[in-house]
Amino acid sequence: MSTAKSAEPKIFARRESEARSYCRAFDTVFTKACNATMIDAEGREYTDFLAGCSSLNYGHNDPDMKTALIEHIAGDGIAHGLDMFTDTKQAFLETFESLILEPRGLPHKLMMTGPTGTNAVEAALKLARKVTGRTEVVAFTNGFHGMTLGALAATGNQGKRGGAGGIILPGVTRMPYEDALGEGADPLDFLETMLDNPSSGIEAPAAFLIELIQGEGGLTAASPAFVRRLASIAKAHGSLLIVDDIQAGIGRCGSFFSFEEMGVEPDMVTLAKSFSGFGLPFAGLLLRPEHDIWKPAEHNGTFRGNTHAFVTARIALEKFWADGQFQAEIAEKSALLTERLGRIAGMIPGAKLKGRGMMQGVDVGGGELAGAICAECFANGLIIETSGAHDEVVKVLAPLTIPRAQFEAGLDTLEAAARHCAPTNNTSIAAE
Amino acid sequence: MSTAKSAEPKIFARRESEARSYCRAFDTVFTKACNATMIDAEGREYTDFLAGCSSLNYGHNDPDMKTALIEHIAGDGIAHGLDMFTDTKQAFLETFESLILEPRGLPHKLMMTGPTGTNAVEAALKLARKVTGRTEVVAFTNGFHGMTLGALAATGNQGKRGGAGGIILPGVTRMPYEDALGEGADPLDFLETMLDNPSSGIEAPAAFLIELIQGEGGLTAASPAFVRRLASIAKAHGSLLIVDDIQAGIGRCGSFFSFEEMGVEPDMVTLAKSFSGFGLPFAGLLLRPEHDIWKPAEHNGTFRGNTHAFVTARIALEKFWADGQFQAEIAEKSALLTERLGRIAGMIPGAKLKGRGMMQGVDVGGGELAGAICAECFANGLIIETSGAHDEVVKVLAPLTIPRAQFEAGLDTLEAAARHCAPTNNTSIAAE
Amino acid sequence: MSTAKSAEPKIFARRESEARSYCRAFDTVFTKACNATMIDAEGREYTDFLAGCSSLNYGHNDPDMKTALIEHIAGDGIAHGLDMFTDTKQAFLETFESLILEPRGLPHKLMMTGPTGTNAVEAALKLARKVTGRTEVVAFTNGFHGMTLGALAATGNQGKRGGAGGIILPGVTRMPYEDALGEGADPLDFLETMLDNPSSGIEAPAAFLIELIQGEGGLTAASPAFVRRLASIAKAHGSLLIVDDIQAGIGRCGSFFSFEEMGVEPDMVTLAKSFSGFGLPFAGLLLRPEHDIWKPAEHNGTFRGNTHAFVTARIALEKFWADGQFQAEIAEKSALLTERLGRIAGMIPGAKLKGRGMMQGVDVGGGELAGAICAECFANGLIIETSGAHDEVVKVLAPLTIPRAQFEAGLDTLEAAARHCAPTNNTSIAAE
Amino acid sequence: MSTAKSAEPKIFARRESEARSYCRAFDTVFTKACNATMIDAEGREYTDFLAGCSSLNYGHNDPDMKTALIEHIAGDGIAHGLDMFTDTKQAFLETFESLILEPRGLPHKLMMTGPTGTNAVEAALKLARKVTGRTEVVAFTNGFHGMTLGALAATGNQGKRGGAGGIILPGVTRMPYEDALGEGADPLDFLETMLDNPSSGIEAPAAFLIELIQGEGGLTAASPAFVRRLASIAKAHGSLLIVDDIQAGIGRCGSFFSFEEMGVEPDMVTLAKSFSGFGLPFAGLLLRPEHDIWKPAEHNGTFRGNTHAFVTARIALEKFWADGQFQAEIAEKSALLTERLGRIAGMIPGAKLKGRGMMQGVDVGGGELAGAICAECFANGLIIETSGAHDEVVKVLAPLTIPRAQFEAGLDTLEAAARHCAPTNNTSIAAE
Repeated sequence: MSTAKSAEPKIFARRESEARSYCRAFDTVFTKACNATMIDAEGREYTDFLAGCSSLNYGHNDPDMKTALIEHIAGDGIAHGLDMFTDTKQAFLETFESLILEPRGLPHKLMMTGPTGTNAVEAALKLARKVTGRTEVVAFTNGFHGMTLGALAATGNQGKRGGAGGIILPGVTRMPYEDALGEGADPLDFLETMLDNPSSGIEAPAAFLIELIQGEGGLTAASPAFVRRLASIAKAHGSLLIVDDIQAGIGRCGSFFSFEEMGVEPDMVTLAKSFSGFGLPFAGLLLRPEHDIWKPAEHNGTFRGNTHAFVTARIALEKFWADGQFQAEIAEKSALLTERLGRIAGMIPGAKLKGRGMMQGVDVGGGELAGAICAECFANGLIIETSGAHDEVVKVLAPLTIPRAQFEAGLDTLEAAARHCAPTNNTSIAAE
Repeated sequence: MSTAKSAEPKIFARRESEARSYCRAFDTVFTKACNATMIDAEGREYTDFLAGCSSLNYGHNDPDMKTALIEHIAGDGIAHGLDMFTDTKQAFLETFESLILEPRGLPHKLMMTGPTGTNAVEAALKLARKVTGRTEVVAFTNGFHGMTLGALAATGNQGKRGGAGGIILPGVTRMPYEDALGEGADPLDFLETMLDNPSSGIEAPAAFLIELIQGEGGLTAASPAFVRRLASIAKAHGSLLIVDDIQAGIGRCGSFFSFEEMGVEPDMVTLAKSFSGFGLPFAGLLLRPEHDIWKPAEHNGTFRGNTHAFVTARIALEKFWADGQFQAEIAEKSALLTERLGRIAGMIPGAKLKGRGMMQGVDVGGGELAGAICAECFANGLIIETSGAHDEVVKVLAPLTIPRAQFEAGLDTLEAAARHCAPTNNTSIAAE
Repeated sequence: MSTAKSAEPKIFARRESEARSYCRAFDTVFTKACNATMIDAEGREYTDFLAGCSSLNYGHNDPDMKTALIEHIAGDGIAHGLDMFTDTKQAFLETFESLILEPRGLPHKLMMTGPTGTNAVEAALKLARKVTGRTEVVAFTNGFHGMTLGALAATGNQGKRGGAGGIILPGVTRMPYEDALGEGADPLDFLETMLDNPSSGIEAPAAFLIELIQGEGGLTAASPAFVRRLASIAKAHGSLLIVDDIQAGIGRCGSFFSFEEMGVEPDMVTLAKSFSGFGLPFAGLLLRPEHDIWKPAEHNGTFRGNTHAFVTARIALEKFWADGQFQAEIAEKSALLTERLGRIAGMIPGAKLKGRGMMQGVDVGGGELAGAICAECFANGLIIETSGAHDEVVKVLAPLTIPRAQFEAGLDTLEAAARHCAPTNNTSIAAE
Repeated sequence: MSTAKSAEPKIFARRESEARSYCRAFDTVFTKACNATMIDAEGREYTDFLAGCSSLNYGHNDPDMKTALIEHIAGDGIAHGLDMFTDTKQAFLETFESLILEPRGLPHKLMMTGPTGTNAVEAALKLARKVTGRTEVVAFTNGFHGMTLGALAATGNQGKRGGAGGIILPGVTRMPYEDALGEGADPLDFLETMLDNPSSGIEAPAAFLIELIQGEGGLTAASPAFVRRLASIAKAHGSLLIVDDIQAGIGRCGSFFSFEEMGVEPDMVTLAKSFSGFGLPFAGLLLRPEHDIWKPAEHNGTFRGNTHAFVTARIALEKFWADGQFQAEIAEKSALLTERLGRIAGMIPGAKLKGRGMMQGVDVGGGELAGAICAECFANGLIIETSGAHDEVVKVLAPLTIPRAQFEAGLDTLEAAARHCAPTNNTSIAAE
């Protein structure tokens, strides 16, 4: 952290806990934001390639959601209603059913969990255990599922786990994600071998909990074949399949859900981040009707069903998911992203493209280089972060709604930063 | 549930999980709300004695907060900024410091946890374990601290615990709350005996986690003497004292924090519910600076530091806590509440007053009667709920800002319902 | 430890782990033993008031068991037969049935567990969990049940628990033993209050595990009224009652089992220590036939059913339990012990008698004094140890078969040591 | 179980728990045994290819041990001395040092644990956690380490684990044994990948706990290369290496320890089964002096250091390990065993040789066939059992001291049984 020229007002050092984090990399005070642009207190504009870690897939302050939300507030619409019935919840559910669930043939019901992703994961794990009568859940290497104790047990990151202060993180068996064993070894062979061996010490789990693209874990994307085989193993062993779509869902990877067109139908799907459309705290759990054995309030929480979020989430669905146009735009931008990141990867020896859709990045081989590139970007007005076990992936999470010109300009900044920081950079420059 | 005359739109049965709860008791669709009044789709008005379970201490849609929030949104203020620095966070923190922390001599820092009470509790437990190097935490009978695995372990309610599906809820030793052993037995004698005996099997914990008024556990209020002695035991054993002020804090019991004027300074304080002022998802953890050993993002979450909430929370502090007027009003209403509930308790054999401040209720001896009274209230336009291990307490959680006339009218409704439902009712009526 | 004059051969320091313990207090090399007498390498005789921690209730090397065991070995009787049928096992079981189980009306079956007390406890806890489908077991303050992980979880001693290296000791809720709350407070009131409160966080357990005299925990003896009430609470809550009779059973407290004449019939009884009669490793679990839901080898172990022990255990039953004579002798010696310990207690301000039967001691108020008394005894040829959370009880565990004259002489030695060490001693002597 | 012609005396059904197991397969009452021969109540002789599951490596009732033990008992030698110093313990330790530890250059100290293998494993796991400050231990698929809770957590067998009644089995991460991933995949690649990835969710463990030949898990033998690499991974990650030599040690696989000539020196070695030489309950833990951080009695147990076992164990060392003759004999018999089992394997399509030394067997492809072969053997006077996750291995565990002629005759019986039961048998017979 550069302390000399820090823009950090003293109140933060004085009164905000050291747990604060993004503010250290992006050391300025932000005041306004619109679509893909953030503005700081000194009027400087930044292009946002972080998008609230995929919480702002529709950009900052979408004008239609803004209008509807202001109208709701101005008209004394319910702001907080626990889990009572409200007109806003009703309208949201009807829209969610007609625009998302029905067209995809999903019979699922929605559980309004506490408005955080980790809470949706906790609800999913509880329910899977209740439904199956089993306690172990299989989670995968490099998975990130949240920070409360139940979800943290499923999170691989050692630093995050260490934050629990030494208490046991129970109920999770770890299995290798698709890429974890290197070339030629299929982790699902391993998984199946373990489950088929009654003396392996690893029993059929309550559920498999998986992100189809690992948002924090380095943007590794599971292949459709892997996901289909996992679903089939789950079925064979009476285990539920839970797709954690908190970061990869809501259009981020090209379709509303990350598992579409993979030929699987998860038993549960966790949603959060961009689910509200506007960046408001909101989360939910999709679950099959036959698994809906919850007793009233058996999992509850004060802020379950954020009413402001119902308003904006409904508008988001109506505006972006009523037809295929938005998805086509994402596909186009995704292709551009692949191409541009490929160029960047080409500049760095050993670099690899990661992810899919608008959730792609470049594994530059190490955290130091990735961090340097992101810092250089920020110095040039681009907000962008790393991902991966070693922070080795430069991750592009632009709003899906980013104007193409701004997207390209941001990618130019990124490319320049990569060129600036890449180990072969000096040589290249010399060659020019 | 009365299905015949239910107002429940079919979308809820079709697509919302059975976990939904309050909507079952208050079976109508709400559309608008203002201060202590809620309005349903058919235009019927209700007085709100539930206040979002103490999340709406300043009432619904406070006009000043509303104005400020609309202005913020209209002006493209940041809606979601992860934990970056923003002008709204800065202003909130400065106000919180000058109006709350400094006047009370609290050196604490604020950790922006995920925007749910359970998340603040999880953060507190993690930090207590990190700071002390111990894993066990002492929680108390009838305590309610949240539904994620770490917080659920500290929650006493059997039904809630059962929702975890049989997985171990680790790291918590249960001790009796002040009233739990009946007349004449002091639970802290028991606690001290256990801690002083090296073969008791109960060791000095990382922390004691306690609500000073048990919001879900039956409105039992700890006495200042109990709290002081607990604080002193904690100190003697190197354990931290964590006050869970999620339901009892933010003015609910008469002062901003529930522990004021008790002569103790907790090591940590969890805040949520009314912390935003407007019912928005928002939570935080106050912690002593010397315990702020968090590494950046060691406990994190997408929605930590809800920016909309910073706006309304700041207005709430400025409007209600800049001088002593609001506190005086609460005291006045609290006295009225005590008097009126005393009258109601007098009508029911064996009934007892519970709680303090604007967090009082009547233990009517059983859940069936308490439920009947609440149902009768709802039929007469009053939203009110029960509390307690057996749902035996009729709990009044009116907005602190409720107009006195409306408060009295609501209490009239409650009294009438109690008279209607009380076992001696028929006789009394006959006698009239 | 006095290192200068240690009799410890160097091989022990060189090759035996520091975990060794009794050899530190009794620092000589023993070579022979007969009934209540031990003899060291230098021919010095010691009276044994420790009796292998109650493993030698019939004394060292009982001549009849010795003869039978030698005959068995000499005749190539089975030494190790896993859990196959053998003539010795058959004869033992038939004798155990006819002399112990039938006369006491006990329908129980015997499970041959691994030949250690802790293994019998592990088997009991497993079975209680299997039978009830519950995981928590209630154990009591100051209880000692063994050192393997499952039994250690039920053991109160902090030092022993610490040996587990920080791993969670799961599945046990701790409750206060009869004396733990001091005068006037009945721990079973507390227990019942907790179990009757659905929000106490403490649920009906799989079992209650209790020693009726706490051998390591300070010789506190539960009263028949306490035990009966506990049995009745267990029944009311569908919990099993497990009496850990490892140290207090096999005649130690006057009857074969410690619970006889209390009007209760435990669901399970753990036996070890003196069960073999000869000090050989041997343990077992008595269990009601209706709870015998074990699958073959579901709990097993190489040395379950020590065949040599079957031989000596049978002789022990035939010799000592065929009629009431032995029990009458124990009663007589117990009365003598009570009287003599009463005299000793009278010499030490605040001292209290503890225990019952031939399992009595004096709580001298602190571990330092108790340790000094035991050391003084050893210097005068008496082997005796302390007990209690603070090692504050001088514990007499003489063989039940000790000749009366030797018993009295040993008690003389103890009394002299107490007089020598008692705080008022010097004054008294000065006064003489 | 054939009940009609059962030799089971009724006392067993009446009074011995259903947990009994070997007696079901070997349904007769044994009375005497000598070296490799067991004799039942009807005078029938059996050849013992089970040897107390490797507890009788020196055969039943070795005459020299017998003589020494009888002399010890007859002379009133100590039978039970807790962990006091005795002449027998001293002599045993001196012999163990001079004949076993010193010649192999092992600096280890011996901890006398409770006299069961599971207790030695519990002690090892505790100590590894204490030494490293870590809680997780890595155990391997198909490993069997005991039945008490701590050791059971490390045991893979689902049926055994299920006996715990649903309680969490904490502190163990499971990894694939050398053969578990099939051809071409090296489990240690997987292990290293996991340990090198800070987001794998699998952290460097306190210890690796491994059997070099899996006695219960199907006689899979780890290769020296595997063991060496595991030792090196352990070292690199600050983890201890614990070899569980309970079944494979004490000469069973050709050398005293199973790890000799592999170029590794484990941090700890658990010993039990044949450690006493005579089949008496006895167990111990070898540990490096620098890890001997036990406090006195921090792990204890009444029967630690079985004195009778010290006598026989010393004789066993003097008789069999003073020179290389015994080892040469084992080698010779092992070669014979390999050859004969190879012939048997050749008769069964797909059958495979397993194990090494005098711990070999034939994987016949399934439990039904293996069980049928063993039953046929028993009908013909040969006691032999199966091993493996599916009981698919016919396992030969003859006493190492078995006379060659008897060994060959037993192998003839086994071969005939295999021929009788083998799937191709009927055809063959028909062809004859």
